[in-house]
Amino acid sequence: MVEGRSDKVEGGRIRLGMVGGGQGAFIGAVHRLAARMDDQYELVAGALSSNPKRARASAKELGLAPDRSYGSYEEMAKAESQRPDGIEAVAIVTPNHMHAPPAKAFLKAGINVICDKPLTTTVKEAKELVALVKKTGLVFAVTHNYTGYPMVRQARAMVAAGKLGEVRVVQAEYAQDWLTEKAEATANKQAKWRTDPKQSGAGGSIGDIGTHAYNLACFVTGLKLDSLCADLTAFVKGRKLDDNDNILLRWKGGAKGMLWASQVAVGHENGAMLRVYGSKGGLVWRQEEPNHLWFSEFGKPLQLITRAGAGAGPEAGRVTRVPAGHPEGYLEGFANIYTEAARAIRAHRDGKKPDPSVIFPSVEDGLSGMQFIEAAVKSSQKGAVWVKL
Amino acid sequence: MVEGRSDKVEGGRIRLGMVGGGQGAFIGAVHRLAARMDDQYELVAGALSSNPKRARASAKELGLAPDRSYGSYEEMAKAESQRPDGIEAVAIVTPNHMHAPPAKAFLKAGINVICDKPLTTTVKEAKELVALVKKTGLVFAVTHNYTGYPMVRQARAMVAAGKLGEVRVVQAEYAQDWLTEKAEATANKQAKWRTDPKQSGAGGSIGDIGTHAYNLACFVTGLKLDSLCADLTAFVKGRKLDDNDNILLRWKGGAKGMLWASQVAVGHENGAMLRVYGSKGGLVWRQEEPNHLWFSEFGKPLQLITRAGAGAGPEAGRVTRVPAGHPEGYLEGFANIYTEAARAIRAHRDGKKPDPSVIFPSVEDGLSGMQFIEAAVKSSQKGAVWVKL
Amino acid sequence: MVEGRSDKVEGGRIRLGMVGGGQGAFIGAVHRLAARMDDQYELVAGALSSNPKRARASAKELGLAPDRSYGSYEEMAKAESQRPDGIEAVAIVTPNHMHAPPAKAFLKAGINVICDKPLTTTVKEAKELVALVKKTGLVFAVTHNYTGYPMVRQARAMVAAGKLGEVRVVQAEYAQDWLTEKAEATANKQAKWRTDPKQSGAGGSIGDIGTHAYNLACFVTGLKLDSLCADLTAFVKGRKLDDNDNILLRWKGGAKGMLWASQVAVGHENGAMLRVYGSKGGLVWRQEEPNHLWFSEFGKPLQLITRAGAGAGPEAGRVTRVPAGHPEGYLEGFANIYTEAARAIRAHRDGKKPDPSVIFPSVEDGLSGMQFIEAAVKSSQKGAVWVKL
Amino acid sequence: MVEGRSDKVEGGRIRLGMVGGGQGAFIGAVHRLAARMDDQYELVAGALSSNPKRARASAKELGLAPDRSYGSYEEMAKAESQRPDGIEAVAIVTPNHMHAPPAKAFLKAGINVICDKPLTTTVKEAKELVALVKKTGLVFAVTHNYTGYPMVRQARAMVAAGKLGEVRVVQAEYAQDWLTEKAEATANKQAKWRTDPKQSGAGGSIGDIGTHAYNLACFVTGLKLDSLCADLTAFVKGRKLDDNDNILLRWKGGAKGMLWASQVAVGHENGAMLRVYGSKGGLVWRQEEPNHLWFSEFGKPLQLITRAGAGAGPEAGRVTRVPAGHPEGYLEGFANIYTEAARAIRAHRDGKKPDPSVIFPSVEDGLSGMQFIEAAVKSSQKGAVWVKL
Repeated sequence: MVEGRSDKVEGGRIRLGMVGGGQGAFIGAVHRLAARMDDQYELVAGALSSNPKRARASAKELGLAPDRSYGSYEEMAKAESQRPDGIEAVAIVTPNHMHAPPAKAFLKAGINVICDKPLTTTVKEAKELVALVKKTGLVFAVTHNYTGYPMVRQARAMVAAGKLGEVRVVQAEYAQDWLTEKAEATANKQAKWRTDPKQSGAGGSIGDIGTHAYNLACFVTGLKLDSLCADLTAFVKGRKLDDNDNILLRWKGGAKGMLWASQVAVGHENGAMLRVYGSKGGLVWRQEEPNHLWFSEFGKPLQLITRAGAGAGPEAGRVTRVPAGHPEGYLEGFANIYTEAARAIRAHRDGKKPDPSVIFPSVEDGLSGMQFIEAAVKSSQKGAVWVKL
Repeated sequence: MVEGRSDKVEGGRIRLGMVGGGQGAFIGAVHRLAARMDDQYELVAGALSSNPKRARASAKELGLAPDRSYGSYEEMAKAESQRPDGIEAVAIVTPNHMHAPPAKAFLKAGINVICDKPLTTTVKEAKELVALVKKTGLVFAVTHNYTGYPMVRQARAMVAAGKLGEVRVVQAEYAQDWLTEKAEATANKQAKWRTDPKQSGAGGSIGDIGTHAYNLACFVTGLKLDSLCADLTAFVKGRKLDDNDNILLRWKGGAKGMLWASQVAVGHENGAMLRVYGSKGGLVWRQEEPNHLWFSEFGKPLQLITRAGAGAGPEAGRVTRVPAGHPEGYLEGFANIYTEAARAIRAHRDGKKPDPSVIFPSVEDGLSGMQFIEAAVKSSQKGAVWVKL
Repeated sequence: MVEGRSDKVEGGRIRLGMVGGGQGAFIGAVHRLAARMDDQYELVAGALSSNPKRARASAKELGLAPDRSYGSYEEMAKAESQRPDGIEAVAIVTPNHMHAPPAKAFLKAGINVICDKPLTTTVKEAKELVALVKKTGLVFAVTHNYTGYPMVRQARAMVAAGKLGEVRVVQAEYAQDWLTEKAEATANKQAKWRTDPKQSGAGGSIGDIGTHAYNLACFVTGLKLDSLCADLTAFVKGRKLDDNDNILLRWKGGAKGMLWASQVAVGHENGAMLRVYGSKGGLVWRQEEPNHLWFSEFGKPLQLITRAGAGAGPEAGRVTRVPAGHPEGYLEGFANIYTEAARAIRAHRDGKKPDPSVIFPSVEDGLSGMQFIEAAVKSSQKGAVWVKL
Repeated sequence: MVEGRSDKVEGGRIRLGMVGGGQGAFIGAVHRLAARMDDQYELVAGALSSNPKRARASAKELGLAPDRSYGSYEEMAKAESQRPDGIEAVAIVTPNHMHAPPAKAFLKAGINVICDKPLTTTVKEAKELVALVKKTGLVFAVTHNYTGYPMVRQARAMVAAGKLGEVRVVQAEYAQDWLTEKAEATANKQAKWRTDPKQSGAGGSIGDIGTHAYNLACFVTGLKLDSLCADLTAFVKGRKLDDNDNILLRWKGGAKGMLWASQVAVGHENGAMLRVYGSKGGLVWRQEEPNHLWFSEFGKPLQLITRAGAGAGPEAGRVTRVPAGHPEGYLEGFANIYTEAARAIRAHRDGKKPDPSVIFPSVEDGLSGMQFIEAAVKSSQKGAVWVKL
């Protein structure tokens, strides 16, 4: 791998459990692969499905010991916290409405948490989780996985180093097309729960992908949002949640921005893009071409900074596995969140603070995402008026 | 040239005059080249500068007869309208505040007008021009030149033919960076007048390039704007007009959109882009890559439709000069406006209606642009609230 | 237009005649438009077709005076050379086999020549033209038009300035697909003559587009070819000339290269590309994206140098019309050859040497192209062996 | 993960050993990650370095049991073949000259082999391995990893299905720039052994990356090479092996091609590209943008086929992990070789033939690569003449 990078296990594999992610799920397998990539975790327990039969079958497929395949997360939290070889961390990969309950249970059981996004379905729940994390001192990571991409970290480092001057304009977007037609009326399970307010919360597209774009903008620029004006729409007849979101942003300190999230933008697969412009320079990053970061210094030719290439700094280098020109992708970026969380979990185990260079989305970032969703929904319901965060 | 295309002069060159466009100007030379490209016009008269010395020197450079180089547009309108070989059309290429006065003078003198954009500096003036055009029956073209690009016409034809289904989302943008620093404090004449409310009107970036993006969106989709919510900003200290515009759009019939215009987006030269998404398909067009139109039918691979290539229809073909793969650019697109206007001028001369396939931006389009600017400025001044068009 | 650029007529329009280019032709209209773009020429005479009826009809369409529409180039050369207002230059836009005869006739009549490429159909004819140009001292331009693109001139200037260090590798290609099927068996006139050895000479694709790629490589690098090894193929059954050419190149001084020309490369329209690599840097230019030049300094991020943008030097600037981000294309590049030739013609008229910054492909470049074609055909016929130039 | 894809362990993890890949190595860590990605292997033994101290330290880092960290591959082959829980497969990740000796040893010990490329340093050794594999019936995979990319498999399937018609032109290239300067004179270990004939064999760039391009061309097209004409150059003074390779190809059946491999092409990181053109269609694939396959049907718009997107077939789908628009990269492609080999190894263990849809580069493909290298070196040494394969 690239210089300075080792794939050695730093202090032994962390014992991991999983809630959700059984047969037929999507994101569970991504979490497992991300956990496995750098060999920092070992999956040893699971409450993989609310359907007991599917839970068992899934556990068998994944090679879990039968006595560590649980029928419910409550049971699992209790049992694992009492085993000497119990799990040290749990991955929560259920639909949104089932994030907070297990997260609370495992935190209370003294187990670190890696939770999918959005953090919860309400700001209230999110605040409860923040309080509980503070109280327990445990590690809590939220898989806003785009912050794991090396060139996103490069972008953040460049903004922080003043390469763009004062940030003025932040344009974030995430365009998909998979909900162009009424997929929730078919057998598509992903479409069903993601368009169902009971499982997804008050936001559709805004919660599912808008929060990713928002998190990305905050992560790279370091800015805090002051207020927003959101026009959320459900274009597909009978759809209960928004499938297209047009939003104006005002950042604290004076920067302005726009955010577009859409699941009906025909021709886009996972078109997340961030564009940041300051008084001295500009940056463009696209998720579908993640190894590239376009950088412009005002008055000079546009530059292409590549992962592991000339111009990429240590912030990108530490989450880089292979040489420049050999593309890394979504799974590597996702795995970086897991590996960074592993460092924090080991530091916690050892009673230390993690190295300040360890970066992953925190429970506070998860809360921030929920506040964004709630403000956007509120703004839109009132006719797209300005709402303070 | 491509099949079905001839460069023959269709009915003799049209005698053209010009107001503005003397030494040191930018857009005047573009208009002259555009007029010349298809050999449809002959420049024979001019009031090229308000500075008499520069006017004479410019006229000499361009080979105008000395007696047809005028000291003022009033003088020119009067004299030319009385000559048997007087100009049949005038090109107005002055700063914005000097569009309406000469336009009125030439219309009153019975001379057709080709006018740069934005049409005027106020909606009031624009309405006066619309009325005068109606009254005189003369041809009036506004050089919203992006509508001259073949693939923009292709896009329009595809939307009209229902290839996208019902239009849902329209994202328009125009990003530049040339005003990132305070260029108006230097010797840059373009920057000076374009940031001066007395010459530009109430809009900066919104008038200079925002109207282009807006015109493009209207032209391609055929939609009418219902209302907007605009957040205009002047990021450069001491700048009197906006240099960045973030706008939410609501179109009549239910489509939504966003428009971003910026002159401080470091790394962008003339980044105009239009993205349109409907219930069946999507389109993306970029000004800096104008020979390409990206088309996606939902559920099929993305397609690249190229100018003069497979998939390009007759609406693009009639404004196409060279084979596929040989790029045409800004000047060709601009020239298409001139050549289309020439067809209308000849039809008018012959007392006929132009062929319905003749397309160029009209005085009504110019008025629409002014209404857009005025609404955006009003919205922003009130704190970015929704304003009906 | 951009700073330092004027569209003024520099010393009066040059009177131009044309051989070929009547109704149904392709390149004639391109030449006329190129001549007209900067207003440096006035088309006043023509022998537009070998078919008298078509010649007359074409002349009428183009507005030529009836007495200056000639039935043959011989007649035209004679008559025009005797008129006091006779043509100063002639554009030869016929199929290849009809380049040399009129070129000789006009040179002998004391008239400057602008000739399409390839220069002739044999090296012998080409050498005769070189000798005649030398003897008469007249201006002779060959429309290897890609050398007119601003970013090609930028590339040449950068190589000359040592930005690449010592040139090592030169990869040139020109890929089209329009002859994928047997178009010469249809009504396609372009396909008919371009695949007919009697009209095209011994080379098909190699003469039609391979010479463009070769000329581009020589122009940018300043290198001379030492030897080549060419594998020419006619893939379409019954085709008399090559439609795909794979060639190894050895340049004097030690650089190596490859050249690929194809008219059966499905998916390519006019895919000319030049890639040059030296001991310090590399350059990539593509005809279908001509306003961009990709430059890499070893060990630094890739840079995008844009026409009229930061990083573009005076060699590009002098053939640039509009600001960065407003694309120029094929016709503008072609026109640059005409405008540069106009400067040389005026200097010749005034008995002066043209300014050394005036650059256009010369009769020697045309000869070089013929030597390349002849060597490639010879190499291939012998089984793809090395042939010295 | 995407529909129809599971990350379950299919029949238990395969016990894997490794030769080479200790501290300071590059490709060893890639192999380990690839083996781990789909959880199909468990690394349990190693002879990680010829330096005993480094071997031990590396084994410890990787968590190997001390008694399974061996001082030599001979020792390891012997010991592991006698353990009841001995390794089922070995990964050989040493420099080229150390591929054949351990490969033979493990085959003779009855252990399946996964070997890095090029297979050996001579054709003779490669033939011995082919014979030994035939004799033992063991599984032998060569990590020509680019064949693991989903869109490369898609391309192969499309050619096989006749989507391109009869293949005519095959252009393969692999351009890097990391050896532009004399890196072997620095501390760069990779540069040292890769430019040393004793460790690399007779080919430099041709062996290191040219074979990848060649393998890719053969894999996608299914063609066999008839003959080649190769011009290999060492541009850097004092370099012992070629760093730039220009090659003409003639395929059996009449197709033609070119192959370019370079390690001095400034601006390229790992620019592998394959372009294939047939009588009906064309394909372009680039390693640095591996999720995209450009497909052109003659006479229709260019199409972009994306991994997991519309247009991607089952051959791509079976080696796909995440949805369209979420990029997969180099490691995923590499892992696909491992996972496919795992299927073959399990089938072998069960005394069955693997499913015919299981695809990975075989020992015969490795031999073919060696024959290509040897022919190219021979051709070049004789002055770049045609050599039959």
